[in-house]
Amino acid sequence: MASDAQDTPSSLPHRHLLDLSDYSAGDIRLILDTAREFRSVLDRPIKKVPTLQGTTVANMFFEPSTRTKLSFGLAAGRLSAETISFSKSGSSVKKGETLRDTAENILAMKCDMVVIRHSSPGAPHYLSRVTDAVLVNAGDGAHAHPTQALLDVLTMSEHIDTFDGLHVSIIGDITHSRVARSNIQALRTLGAEVTLCGPRTMIPPQIEHLGVHVTHHLDEALDRSDIVMALRIQLERQDEGLFPSLREYHDRFGITTEHMEAHPDLLVMHPGPVNRGVELAHDVVDHERAIILSQVTNGVAVRMAVLYLLAPGRQTDAAE
Amino acid sequence: MASDAQDTPSSLPHRHLLDLSDYSAGDIRLILDTAREFRSVLDRPIKKVPTLQGTTVANMFFEPSTRTKLSFGLAAGRLSAETISFSKSGSSVKKGETLRDTAENILAMKCDMVVIRHSSPGAPHYLSRVTDAVLVNAGDGAHAHPTQALLDVLTMSEHIDTFDGLHVSIIGDITHSRVARSNIQALRTLGAEVTLCGPRTMIPPQIEHLGVHVTHHLDEALDRSDIVMALRIQLERQDEGLFPSLREYHDRFGITTEHMEAHPDLLVMHPGPVNRGVELAHDVVDHERAIILSQVTNGVAVRMAVLYLLAPGRQTDAAE
Amino acid sequence: MASDAQDTPSSLPHRHLLDLSDYSAGDIRLILDTAREFRSVLDRPIKKVPTLQGTTVANMFFEPSTRTKLSFGLAAGRLSAETISFSKSGSSVKKGETLRDTAENILAMKCDMVVIRHSSPGAPHYLSRVTDAVLVNAGDGAHAHPTQALLDVLTMSEHIDTFDGLHVSIIGDITHSRVARSNIQALRTLGAEVTLCGPRTMIPPQIEHLGVHVTHHLDEALDRSDIVMALRIQLERQDEGLFPSLREYHDRFGITTEHMEAHPDLLVMHPGPVNRGVELAHDVVDHERAIILSQVTNGVAVRMAVLYLLAPGRQTDAAE
Repeated sequence: MASDAQDTPSSLPHRHLLDLSDYSAGDIRLILDTAREFRSVLDRPIKKVPTLQGTTVANMFFEPSTRTKLSFGLAAGRLSAETISFSKSGSSVKKGETLRDTAENILAMKCDMVVIRHSSPGAPHYLSRVTDAVLVNAGDGAHAHPTQALLDVLTMSEHIDTFDGLHVSIIGDITHSRVARSNIQALRTLGAEVTLCGPRTMIPPQIEHLGVHVTHHLDEALDRSDIVMALRIQLERQDEGLFPSLREYHDRFGITTEHMEAHPDLLVMHPGPVNRGVELAHDVVDHERAIILSQVTNGVAVRMAVLYLLAPGRQTDAAE
Repeated sequence: MASDAQDTPSSLPHRHLLDLSDYSAGDIRLILDTAREFRSVLDRPIKKVPTLQGTTVANMFFEPSTRTKLSFGLAAGRLSAETISFSKSGSSVKKGETLRDTAENILAMKCDMVVIRHSSPGAPHYLSRVTDAVLVNAGDGAHAHPTQALLDVLTMSEHIDTFDGLHVSIIGDITHSRVARSNIQALRTLGAEVTLCGPRTMIPPQIEHLGVHVTHHLDEALDRSDIVMALRIQLERQDEGLFPSLREYHDRFGITTEHMEAHPDLLVMHPGPVNRGVELAHDVVDHERAIILSQVTNGVAVRMAVLYLLAPGRQTDAAE
Repeated sequence: MASDAQDTPSSLPHRHLLDLSDYSAGDIRLILDTAREFRSVLDRPIKKVPTLQGTTVANMFFEPSTRTKLSFGLAAGRLSAETISFSKSGSSVKKGETLRDTAENILAMKCDMVVIRHSSPGAPHYLSRVTDAVLVNAGDGAHAHPTQALLDVLTMSEHIDTFDGLHVSIIGDITHSRVARSNIQALRTLGAEVTLCGPRTMIPPQIEHLGVHVTHHLDEALDRSDIVMALRIQLERQDEGLFPSLREYHDRFGITTEHMEAHPDLLVMHPGPVNRGVELAHDVVDHERAIILSQVTNGVAVRMAVLYLLAPGRQTDAAE
């Protein structure tokens, strides 16, 4: 994918990655270009560079997470950074310590960067105001998951020439999805068209204000799409009566091999983990046009890029 | 212990370590020779070699484990490999993800090797068929625990001249023991005699087909043994009524100081952790002929050898 | 703070750090001087020195802990040591393994040093008698928490000229506090005066034998103090009826902004995590004379110093 060199900056004009609302197309392109360089490191026998040696990254996960935590941990390790991990279970949070006190204590141990996942929307933004840390949002409630969106657009960029005129559909529970929210920001900033599709109960009213299309019919979404991104259905939310059953959801919004045949150029993405037979038919997960595992690989590369570009020493260099 | 150099290969003709069924005596000797070299590293002040720098080992433990997990972690660290750890609790497995999807996601993060423990027999074999990873079995159900058997024979080799004519008894719940199963394979391959001993309810019928002797009398087993290996009794299995009580088990199958005195050359082994007073009398655990802690030390060395010999780069070298 | 060079040794005449009862003023000064050097490392962009490369530190935490465990882990990592972590949950301790067997197994994996936290007073002392490990006590029941006291006196030393004539008050549940016990030892050894203050139910009878003053009136304690250290109230102990309510505790023993104004040179310390509004009023936690976060930073430096000074290789050097 060709990037316009003239409007790609050489460093980020940001101290944090909280969400993508103030990241320009140039900022995003810088991250993608940097991630592509790190992506090539991951294909070498020795997958490690000494770039962040002596830097300490604190992974503060206040919500369960496997792959995002592993991905950030690997990204930091491959840059030779030290990492410390902090999960809610077994931590002082049980003892009633406030988020701010926890963060300040971890920072007082001289950590340079904080990667945070939290169930409260805005938790990383709050910490960025009350502490000195460089903050990277690894998912805050239903608000934002910027590194997910960045790895998604990086993966798309491997298959397309330009985001101008690209059409991406996002299928599922948009209301509760930080993945959807951050992807809308990234894709709209880069010039792509976005269609949201799902049951009426799962799409917030008036979301068209974000510059997106809305439909409740999967076929309509697929007809206009180059790429379809299926969101994970939170099985634990079934009880809330948002839709009658997983079976019915699959019948109305699941991507099937028939869809893949009807749309011979369509690429399928999913933030994982897939509920096979729900969002995607079993065979679609393993389809040659499903690029889900590339998303996972690119996740490590994008997080390496974000940690590298926001590392305190690097920011100082950029300011000189 | 003298090894016949002429039939020890210089590299393993295997891509994985799933179980020992297709490992020849020469293959096992290569692992033991390599482990002895790494064993000497462990006695140095600096217990680290840069051999696997930049290689990433994923420790996927779907069953609780302390010592095997620590042992593999230390082995990888002392070879300077990166490690990521994945335990069932707090992982996406809860979210209904399949084993294969979990493994493929971890591999997509560009891990080179997967160490896996799983309660389902054959889980590592399945993954070896459906993924590209190098797989090392760290225990699959009651099926196999090959690195345990390798550390056991390494420990034996420090005290004997040859496995030819060596007689080893394995005492306990053979039916449910992956340790027993892998030791039978290793010891028979190396030419040793094996006697299994335990209550009738704990020894599978027709197991003599594996080329082993069976007895239900401890004295008969000890009379013919150079080495006795006591298996851990799973306390949680008491409820199944396999034997009346721990006391009765100890009376019939526990190794006591009287046994040690009656057999003045007998060596005692145990895969740990020992239930003191059950499989072994308290004083036997600390006996000078109990070589249980050597097993633990050799566990790190054997796992270093296995990771080294199976590392993707090394295999490529060997193929040239 | 000036230290008398003539009675500061160049190495510790101790193999372990179990408590501070046999550490002289010179020994403590050596630790503080060493910690100050490592403290400066923490302010560098590259916060890592290769001092303990190839040394393995086992962190054995049999009690939940966040900050002490992170602090020791960071300290070891910044000295380039390998660390392995062992927490009670998910470990073999569940399986009935004794403390000694657990420790001996971990040591058999060729760990050089053991950092241990345990709910039983004397657990580290016991291990030091029955194993070959170098032991560092990270808190044993209500008995001792020596690295906490060392980080506390290091933090004090940044604000005072000498411990001679310094007056420190410790406020709270003295009976159950290993922090109080170790601070009394360190402060008395260095020549400071110590006043203990709390409800009668929380101060052991006849504790004056340790050379401390006792009062049950906060104002009396503060009137004579240069520094006040508030201990954490264990909220889970409320049910024991030691005091009527948190509100009443705060009214009688909580430090407020009024106290800070009435004592314009008073410094406030707390081992953390603070129950805001209980031991300290909310605004006191963030007061410019609250040096709680310095304690946290100094914790990493002191633990680096202790690991460095007690590392096996280092001890050998010192003995030559």
